[in-house]
Amino acid sequence: MKVAFIGLGNMGAEMAPHILAAGHELTVYNRTRSATERLQKLGARVADSPADAVQEAEVLLTIVANDTALKDVIFGTTEIPGAIDKLARDAVHVSMSTISLALSQQLEQAHKTAGQAYLAAPVFGRPETARAAKLWVVSAGDSKQIERCRPLFESMGQGVFVVGEQPHLANLVKVTGNFAIASVLETLSEAFVLIQKSGISPRQFLEIINTAVFKSPVYEVLGTMIAEEQYEPAEFKLHLGLKDVRLVLEAAESAAVPLPLASLLRDHFLSGVARGDGDIDWSAVGRVNASNAGL
Amino acid sequence: MKVAFIGLGNMGAEMAPHILAAGHELTVYNRTRSATERLQKLGARVADSPADAVQEAEVLLTIVANDTALKDVIFGTTEIPGAIDKLARDAVHVSMSTISLALSQQLEQAHKTAGQAYLAAPVFGRPETARAAKLWVVSAGDSKQIERCRPLFESMGQGVFVVGEQPHLANLVKVTGNFAIASVLETLSEAFVLIQKSGISPRQFLEIINTAVFKSPVYEVLGTMIAEEQYEPAEFKLHLGLKDVRLVLEAAESAAVPLPLASLLRDHFLSGVARGDGDIDWSAVGRVNASNAGL
Amino acid sequence: MKVAFIGLGNMGAEMAPHILAAGHELTVYNRTRSATERLQKLGARVADSPADAVQEAEVLLTIVANDTALKDVIFGTTEIPGAIDKLARDAVHVSMSTISLALSQQLEQAHKTAGQAYLAAPVFGRPETARAAKLWVVSAGDSKQIERCRPLFESMGQGVFVVGEQPHLANLVKVTGNFAIASVLETLSEAFVLIQKSGISPRQFLEIINTAVFKSPVYEVLGTMIAEEQYEPAEFKLHLGLKDVRLVLEAAESAAVPLPLASLLRDHFLSGVARGDGDIDWSAVGRVNASNAGL
Amino acid sequence: MKVAFIGLGNMGAEMAPHILAAGHELTVYNRTRSATERLQKLGARVADSPADAVQEAEVLLTIVANDTALKDVIFGTTEIPGAIDKLARDAVHVSMSTISLALSQQLEQAHKTAGQAYLAAPVFGRPETARAAKLWVVSAGDSKQIERCRPLFESMGQGVFVVGEQPHLANLVKVTGNFAIASVLETLSEAFVLIQKSGISPRQFLEIINTAVFKSPVYEVLGTMIAEEQYEPAEFKLHLGLKDVRLVLEAAESAAVPLPLASLLRDHFLSGVARGDGDIDWSAVGRVNASNAGL
Repeated sequence: MKVAFIGLGNMGAEMAPHILAAGHELTVYNRTRSATERLQKLGARVADSPADAVQEAEVLLTIVANDTALKDVIFGTTEIPGAIDKLARDAVHVSMSTISLALSQQLEQAHKTAGQAYLAAPVFGRPETARAAKLWVVSAGDSKQIERCRPLFESMGQGVFVVGEQPHLANLVKVTGNFAIASVLETLSEAFVLIQKSGISPRQFLEIINTAVFKSPVYEVLGTMIAEEQYEPAEFKLHLGLKDVRLVLEAAESAAVPLPLASLLRDHFLSGVARGDGDIDWSAVGRVNASNAGL
Repeated sequence: MKVAFIGLGNMGAEMAPHILAAGHELTVYNRTRSATERLQKLGARVADSPADAVQEAEVLLTIVANDTALKDVIFGTTEIPGAIDKLARDAVHVSMSTISLALSQQLEQAHKTAGQAYLAAPVFGRPETARAAKLWVVSAGDSKQIERCRPLFESMGQGVFVVGEQPHLANLVKVTGNFAIASVLETLSEAFVLIQKSGISPRQFLEIINTAVFKSPVYEVLGTMIAEEQYEPAEFKLHLGLKDVRLVLEAAESAAVPLPLASLLRDHFLSGVARGDGDIDWSAVGRVNASNAGL
Repeated sequence: MKVAFIGLGNMGAEMAPHILAAGHELTVYNRTRSATERLQKLGARVADSPADAVQEAEVLLTIVANDTALKDVIFGTTEIPGAIDKLARDAVHVSMSTISLALSQQLEQAHKTAGQAYLAAPVFGRPETARAAKLWVVSAGDSKQIERCRPLFESMGQGVFVVGEQPHLANLVKVTGNFAIASVLETLSEAFVLIQKSGISPRQFLEIINTAVFKSPVYEVLGTMIAEEQYEPAEFKLHLGLKDVRLVLEAAESAAVPLPLASLLRDHFLSGVARGDGDIDWSAVGRVNASNAGL
Repeated sequence: MKVAFIGLGNMGAEMAPHILAAGHELTVYNRTRSATERLQKLGARVADSPADAVQEAEVLLTIVANDTALKDVIFGTTEIPGAIDKLARDAVHVSMSTISLALSQQLEQAHKTAGQAYLAAPVFGRPETARAAKLWVVSAGDSKQIERCRPLFESMGQGVFVVGEQPHLANLVKVTGNFAIASVLETLSEAFVLIQKSGISPRQFLEIINTAVFKSPVYEVLGTMIAEEQYEPAEFKLHLGLKDVRLVLEAAESAAVPLPLASLLRDHFLSGVARGDGDIDWSAVGRVNASNAGL
């Protein structure tokens, strides 16, 4: 297939090569052009704008940082022409970013009006998971379009979940899943502060509960980062964690669902940003709990 | 060894047989005598009181419901003579219950005064884990005493962690670990309410995040209970969950550590008790979140 | 002065007559025309649209329900022409609604571009306070414009506070003040549930603490509403309370300030909406606490 | 009447002189003897122990710091004989301290067993209110005993509330009232941080909302302390604030009432203690919010 891929950040840069490797014809675009060099060497065409990228595309894959970036890519800015005007009728835009449900619904409408298809297909996994083509894809939208894109999903991931016909439901699963992950940060960092003030090493506590109880790679990875206070380089920046918590709170407000634990996470991530930790890893939210305990 | 085992509840009833199976001489006591029948058939002597149970014991193992029950067992009541007066000098009391750090420290002193040894060795695992002799033992206290008791721990469990020389540190690890488990209940039940109100099945959401992210038996077991609203028979009663959260909050207050997530758990467990759900499974705390979202 | 007054809701309907009474020439507009009848009888001209209302105006006063309503009034909709295009250069728009800081900043820019002046001047007080011309006006913006409008403020209120030259600061004071008022609802409703379950009447408790401690009309009025469960007719609807809490949380997020008490209020107001209480008085948030205590 | 007065701290030292002034025969006791000098000059007898103090007393008034201090006074310690053994049958103990409901119930029983009467009569007011004999007394217990003691209450206060026949209900009203006061600290300190980071002075904000909305001396006094960061000398120490929040949470747990705002207060007071602010004024809890906002 002819594929346009927009967004070569931490995740996208690891995902796009698998599209090429699976034999598809790839055009890439990234706001910062230097990120495209590696893909060019692998055989991708480099486009000058989102509009340029999608000229021939049957499928447009996007994975960018937030709502604003995705709106810029699709609808364009005063300087850079957006993708939607040049994307062919019958082509499909697969949005893989972690964005708001509201934007996902807006995109669904906009593409429908333009005679194009739209899927949401955010992924679970870290950059190294993406490199290993082991992501998990959560997709929603028209089932024929999902089948059409399944080979692309399978080139990048180890499994595809289909959660409904309304694209924004995939975004809901993604932001709610990220909320569940962020909760582990809060749980462990509260526990570690208590353990540490009592004279036991957080590392030992982590080893005990992950061996005896959780047996989970998430607890292992995030717990180690907090226990070792290894916040740089950031794998996932704290201010993006705040964004994700905001997204789940917005989704929940629309559905009239209070999420008191998400409210607590929001307060702590916000405190992390206020303390100047927005650009280090989100596991640094543990510092808020440490500070509140006088450490 | 000559072992006295007091407390044949959900956990104890599954643990004691392994002591016999490992070739030790076992005397058991339980407040409700009917629970001792199975052990008697397996070859244990049944005692009439804690004092009676420990007459010959080198090691006293206790696993009862809460602080009050353990104080009754050790110090006696007006009706039932307690263990401490009859326990031999040089014998060791191994407390495996989930109790307060304060009581653990009190027991340490009381046994010291009586010329006896004291260990805390609470366990992680469910009744079925106990049956399979796959518990994890978290022990603290004098290292010689721990080595002395290791064969007993190994007969019941698949691993032994040693966390320090002060017995109450093992209790701290246990209550902090239970706090981490309880946090999963809150996380999942908040997530499920949002997911469900948006038209996705909590079971599917659970499958996605546990396959793609957590890969944890705890999320599988607790998540399934909440998703299926399978709260009876209770594996662990909600009012005991409230007790455990109270224990970690007390420990944290002593150490001047705020635990806002534990405070949230406390409020929700308390609401569960107020709604009349104290005697069903603690996963029913999810009903509080459901009710708050108008479900 | 020639004054246009837009928004004859609970508050506006009580405020506008004072402008007439002070001898100004008044034109009024309200989306629902029936609300204008009383003002017409008092001598006001009734306009057909916001654009029509401001044709001759030196001062435009607006007091509407929320951001959307104010944007419609100022910028127009597909059906109704907005005020900004017809407002004279050098005229001043005084926004008295409880709106977001973001919209206030947007209006400041828009009016500047149009050669018009802009003040924010939200008020504290209930409808009966407005009727008695006893409101308190919190104003911000260019000091000459504030002096220009002071006679109008004084006709409606018993005092004017000036908080800065940036109009949105007045909005900040307003939403932060409303947060402080909403906190009283939470405080009293938690206290009342405890008091009531213990067999004391909330009314007596309220009498004691307001006589002995607070001596505050806010505690008297709000406390009585909760104690008597007198939620209809709504003086201030619960869904508007939710809106105001959202506004203060948004303002605080922009300033990187966690407000955990506002987060708690948000969760409880949201729960009130989820339970179907969005259109009764915001003091009904007490039902959330009652329900959580099993009442 | 013959009155024994035990506890000459911040409050008691201002209250006891009014008993003398009203013409009663007064014996005082205080753990730190120096505090008794002023009373001695005014005509009080100074006792050597609680037991000594009550030898002739018809009424024993106690006002001490916490449960432990009151238990020491009533039941004695290994060094100091307590009051209960020497208090005459038919004498009445009036407990005016802020203590737990549990201790109040225990005292009720103990005095009953000893043939003595027991009232709880905690007070609202600050030391300067006590000096002016303007306290508010909240009493509960046998109505004849309340009438017997009313002249004493009236000598110290401007009003007496009677809340029931069970003494501990007066303690409940007191701790719930203190919770309501503590909530003002949280509300104002959150608001002030937001206001301050936005460039407005907390003092001006306080003036606005207390003039326009609250009109309350509590907001004036506590708000000024936070706005001016005037935490020393402490009028009411932060660690005592933590104690009071703990008391209301304990009372609420017994009644199965979640108090999420009290949980938040507990976390913040605990953080204040952890940061080393336990011995300065409880209004310093505002520092926790300031720190969490990066100030």
